[in-house]
Amino acid sequence: MAQAQQAKAQRITPRAKDFSEWYGDVITQAQLADYSPVRGCMVIRPHGYRMWELMQRALDDMIKASGHKNAYFPLFIPMSYLAKEAEHVEGFAKEVALVTHTRLRATGKEGKDAVAVDPTSALEEPLVVRPTSETIIYGMLAKWIQSYRDLPVLLNQWCNIVRWEMRTRLFLRTTEFLWQEGHTAHATSEEAEAEARLILGMYRRFQEEWLALPVLTGLKTDSERFAGAVRTYALEGLMQDNKAMQAGTSHFLGQNFAKAFGVQFQTAAGGLDHVWSTSWGVSTRLIGGLIMTHSDDNGLVAPPKVAPVQVVIVPIWKTDDERAQVSGVGSQVKADLEKAGLRVELDLRDTMKPGAKYFEWEGLGVPVRLEIGPRDLASGQVVLARRTGGKAPVPLQSAVGAVTAALEEIQAALFDAAKERREKNSIRGATKAQFLECMKGSGGFVYGGYCGGATCEAEIKQQTNATIRVLPDPEFRSKDVPKTCMWCDKPSVAEAVWAQAY
Amino acid sequence: MAQAQQAKAQRITPRAKDFSEWYGDVITQAQLADYSPVRGCMVIRPHGYRMWELMQRALDDMIKASGHKNAYFPLFIPMSYLAKEAEHVEGFAKEVALVTHTRLRATGKEGKDAVAVDPTSALEEPLVVRPTSETIIYGMLAKWIQSYRDLPVLLNQWCNIVRWEMRTRLFLRTTEFLWQEGHTAHATSEEAEAEARLILGMYRRFQEEWLALPVLTGLKTDSERFAGAVRTYALEGLMQDNKAMQAGTSHFLGQNFAKAFGVQFQTAAGGLDHVWSTSWGVSTRLIGGLIMTHSDDNGLVAPPKVAPVQVVIVPIWKTDDERAQVSGVGSQVKADLEKAGLRVELDLRDTMKPGAKYFEWEGLGVPVRLEIGPRDLASGQVVLARRTGGKAPVPLQSAVGAVTAALEEIQAALFDAAKERREKNSIRGATKAQFLECMKGSGGFVYGGYCGGATCEAEIKQQTNATIRVLPDPEFRSKDVPKTCMWCDKPSVAEAVWAQAY
Repeated sequence: MAQAQQAKAQRITPRAKDFSEWYGDVITQAQLADYSPVRGCMVIRPHGYRMWELMQRALDDMIKASGHKNAYFPLFIPMSYLAKEAEHVEGFAKEVALVTHTRLRATGKEGKDAVAVDPTSALEEPLVVRPTSETIIYGMLAKWIQSYRDLPVLLNQWCNIVRWEMRTRLFLRTTEFLWQEGHTAHATSEEAEAEARLILGMYRRFQEEWLALPVLTGLKTDSERFAGAVRTYALEGLMQDNKAMQAGTSHFLGQNFAKAFGVQFQTAAGGLDHVWSTSWGVSTRLIGGLIMTHSDDNGLVAPPKVAPVQVVIVPIWKTDDERAQVSGVGSQVKADLEKAGLRVELDLRDTMKPGAKYFEWEGLGVPVRLEIGPRDLASGQVVLARRTGGKAPVPLQSAVGAVTAALEEIQAALFDAAKERREKNSIRGATKAQFLECMKGSGGFVYGGYCGGATCEAEIKQQTNATIRVLPDPEFRSKDVPKTCMWCDKPSVAEAVWAQAY
Repeated sequence: MAQAQQAKAQRITPRAKDFSEWYGDVITQAQLADYSPVRGCMVIRPHGYRMWELMQRALDDMIKASGHKNAYFPLFIPMSYLAKEAEHVEGFAKEVALVTHTRLRATGKEGKDAVAVDPTSALEEPLVVRPTSETIIYGMLAKWIQSYRDLPVLLNQWCNIVRWEMRTRLFLRTTEFLWQEGHTAHATSEEAEAEARLILGMYRRFQEEWLALPVLTGLKTDSERFAGAVRTYALEGLMQDNKAMQAGTSHFLGQNFAKAFGVQFQTAAGGLDHVWSTSWGVSTRLIGGLIMTHSDDNGLVAPPKVAPVQVVIVPIWKTDDERAQVSGVGSQVKADLEKAGLRVELDLRDTMKPGAKYFEWEGLGVPVRLEIGPRDLASGQVVLARRTGGKAPVPLQSAVGAVTAALEEIQAALFDAAKERREKNSIRGATKAQFLECMKGSGGFVYGGYCGGATCEAEIKQQTNATIRVLPDPEFRSKDVPKTCMWCDKPSVAEAVWAQAY
């Protein structure tokens, strides 16, 4: 309720006018997050954090059900560790927060300059604030893994990481963000590859079923591959402004990190081999993806399964008698809905009119609203209004069933609508001219042939700012396989999906 | 199971021989945690992390049930923020990790020295890695709070924090640790004080009911007060080596941080006032407290409510037929126990004898073991063995009931035993001579009169290394109120509990 009290009525910039402004307004209105005094670091406010907790819980259950165990590795990584895998350090060298000292000293000055870094507290070896944890984890695995009997190791951790970004945007790209990172080690290449694919499938299920995000899956090209990986698989969604958003990645790391950190094991045959490994992650960025996929000009639209509040009950009254009656019924309905496992708020504030309450809860993305007024009650019904449109009376007696059904329908409808929108904004078998027109104009996913050359990728990026989001998995590929590269007309080695991206 | 496979048989140093060695051995044997390559930072391994997750879940439910909401604030705090509250910065100045640069550069050298801090990437203002989050949170509250209608603000966050410690020990004192920190803002001093006390009670309930930790509650003296607080309340447990361990703190901050950060609100009467606030936290340190309270010379003893595995089923067989029979029954019992909401493992490894399995699961702290052998089955029973001693056959038909009852009894017995041990090792109404003898000898809690003077505290600490753990709350005070200071014989202003502490 405190959230609602604080949600000051505010006009949201329409999407059509300025998508980026709209995005920020939706976040402010729903009190999901706020900028902090540290450049690029955000505060995740209770309403946004609750959504993250619900997402975490769902994904964590899937991670555990597939045999992975959670653990926690240190925030700090010795600088020399990062340097052990050459491509890895090159990928992260320009965006790491470095801890170099451990004490402050008083300067004798006033205010802002009252303290300074104590130069006598310099660390012998600076520490990197983890941008990802492969290096520190492989350092430990070298100690823990001796034999094939110790494999596979299936670990996951939920934590904060830091990448010093130049341009930041709430949820989508922040200096610090929250994520889970899975790290697994296997006896064979095949097993590790199967794990990377398994996780890609798990992420897809999570994103489709819980977040109602339709995603394409596939392989990244070398230019977008994770620094240190052999292969990077990714999930890509198409936002309402027709830009792509990477929703998660799963990497087959081969033996790269195992070799860099000497993670060897005795094989069943008595030999010695390096482990084969994977890593994979999704982050608070997904909240940005949710917003840009489902929300509208009235504010946040939260998919029911991860909505902090799924149902708000707004009683309507004029007299004190009416107030007593509608709040009594409201309390009962709330208890019934909670018993059915739903997250419910009852809005009894008498400082606001119903219309203002509706507006506020809409901005917070609550999927279903129940209006309880004396006239409706007299005929044994309440009004069920959906955040995504539509309003109809339902019998009070069957309110729980009606709400549950509505939530399920809304969840499914959000996914269907997003998928339909994506398909409407996808061009298959595009020519170079069509592609250029699309990237200058409305944007979207463009499927086209690709010669496999880095030059075409680079030219395209330079001229259109579009990149290959994925070389799509079979089920997403076009029926008519493109035969030539959309850009250079040389033979195509794979179909690619191009888009401008976040 | 992977955990168990990895738990190499190892001898644990007896407590009586070397308590500190014993503590480390228990952690290694149970695979709870490990040292990392970064000085003072630990890795929490799956078995330890699972325990933390179970603790988190229980406490988080209590935190939410009392109206608090989770949020997330940045890891980094501008150096000048820390300096805004004078006592606060003084308290933390000597133990902060400071981020000063954001890029690495290649040196052209090989190996360890391949990269170095890029001096051109120095930050204008260094950042402190949060040692606690009051300053960054009050910076935000100043923006969010305008009126008494916005109060109270009841926030909590689960996160990692960093305090650069000189001497570290797994769980008890590590450079980085995990905790929850609650932060609340209120319109009146009385409300904030009530909140600080409410949380103290909640922590006590959590520690007693979930961790089976008997704790004393009370007020800290100024010398142990949180830097920036007006009053610090604490919970203190007595470990098996008769040293005290602080198990949590709850601070009444008055208007200190509100004034430092200008967090003002319009009062109901139309005036302007600074908010009154509290902060409170418990950390992964509690896992250390659990170990040192309950475990024995055979390894970890986990209280059933937070045991990662509550029941292990060990089938016993000689022939293949027997193996088929006992594993079939084992699987069924496992399913039945899981249906009853218990965390169960079935140990079907055929590379180990039952005795070795018992030893291993004991080291992991599993409260109840069910042995299923052909002879027992023939008479319709299984053997229920308790980690804390005792073994008896129970009818197979009522195994679930027997296990559930045993777990409840063990949970209660652990608390009772720890409380009895604490009382046995507490001296009330001590004279100076008795106190000195106790601190030179076996240690424990010493209740004595206290004049309120800092000199007595300082002298005692210097001579005995003992400190006042708390000025105990009424229910813990002695019946005979001490009239004079145990140390200087001046009139006593409060009874104090002294101990050497972690």
